Amino acid sequence: MHQDGLKCIELCYKCAAMCDFCAASCLKEDNPARMTDCIRLAVQCAGICRLSAQFMSLDSDYFKQTCRICVDICKACAEECAKHQSDHCQRCAKICRNCANACLRMVA
Amino acid sequence: MHQDGLKCIELCYKCAAMCDFCAASCLKEDNPARMTDCIRLAVQCAGICRLSAQFMSLDSDYFKQTCRICVDICKACAEECAKHQSDHCQRCAKICRNCANACLRMVA
Amino acid sequence: MHQDGLKCIELCYKCAAMCDFCAASCLKEDNPARMTDCIRLAVQCAGICRLSAQFMSLDSDYFKQTCRICVDICKACAEECAKHQSDHCQRCAKICRNCANACLRMVA
Amino acid sequence: MHQDGLKCIELCYKCAAMCDFCAASCLKEDNPARMTDCIRLAVQCAGICRLSAQFMSLDSDYFKQTCRICVDICKACAEECAKHQSDHCQRCAKICRNCANACLRMVA
Repeated sequence: MHQDGLKCIELCYKCAAMCDFCAASCLKEDNPARMTDCIRLAVQCAGICRLSAQFMSLDSDYFKQTCRICVDICKACAEECAKHQSDHCQRCAKICRNCANACLRMVA
Repeated sequence: MHQDGLKCIELCYKCAAMCDFCAASCLKEDNPARMTDCIRLAVQCAGICRLSAQFMSLDSDYFKQTCRICVDICKACAEECAKHQSDHCQRCAKICRNCANACLRMVA
Repeated sequence: MHQDGLKCIELCYKCAAMCDFCAASCLKEDNPARMTDCIRLAVQCAGICRLSAQFMSLDSDYFKQTCRICVDICKACAEECAKHQSDHCQRCAKICRNCANACLRMVA
Repeated sequence: MHQDGLKCIELCYKCAAMCDFCAASCLKEDNPARMTDCIRLAVQCAGICRLSAQFMSLDSDYFKQTCRICVDICKACAEECAKHQSDHCQRCAKICRNCANACLRMVA
């Protein structure tokens, strides 16, 4: 696996970890009703990030297709997280954007 | 979730179970060297089937995108499995085709 | 895979589908703050159910260990869901109990 | 999440990536029949590593139970990989041992 692939796998798993943590943290907030879109997207983002990382690691013929979805969901999750001021949401937004960029390079 | 969605979720998980079983069975055969393409595809097929089922169950905005990949990998796995005479490969080919058809209806 | 194993795989995936649906439905309710424990447990329950089903399908040496965790999380999720009157929670509670029982038979 | 947890999540995902890569590489070798135990264990190891990382990130009440299985499978995978001279197996053995040690600290 070349350098871009290794970096993208690392960022996908980092993003999965941050999204799971963000979803769990949103559920603990005083007003989780404000965070439902964030939770929903973070759970899905963690799922597609893990599968994309797995497909890249397996050197699958289909990794570009999973990375393409990863770009879309990471961007949507970053946009939603960026609206919230909590530290976990702000950090999640940043990592989602990094992951989206790395996946975009993979599908180019 | 409407009727087609429920049926597709069920078929995706059925396909995941059969693909995992097929991969494990191929590894136990006398000549696993003949089965490497089958194992590789079955592992990936199980992975995308599980994610597509999860995304449909979550009523995700992205389920059509995962189902589209599911169609491609299920078809490729069915084609490869169909070449082999073992019972597990023949059954796997059939279930993969059913799953591909169900996913195709979801993306229509 | 003998009959009990096949039944358990089917129930684990059925439970995963119901838990994902229940979590997504809880997030759409008027007062999601009441449902946070339910959402948290349902997400984890879906995850361990999928892994246990995968390990049984793979005929893994470790399926009893994953099934044991599945029993614990399914029971906890059933207990939490049973507290809520919505249709999705009541159905989820029932399916979680069925899955816990099936996993219990596998570890016996 | 405290420092040990973050480190363990990182190592679990690193191990998942290495195990997937090792399984795919074993399937490409001249004599995959020699590598079937390795492939089987690596696929399972990647699965439990991903779930353990997810459970730790979610701050789940059940992460010690998944980490305990992770210790067992990582050790078994490391032992099997260590028997083979290929670079991917040797690196996989090392990362599996690191991951087992990190998970062991989590369950202590």
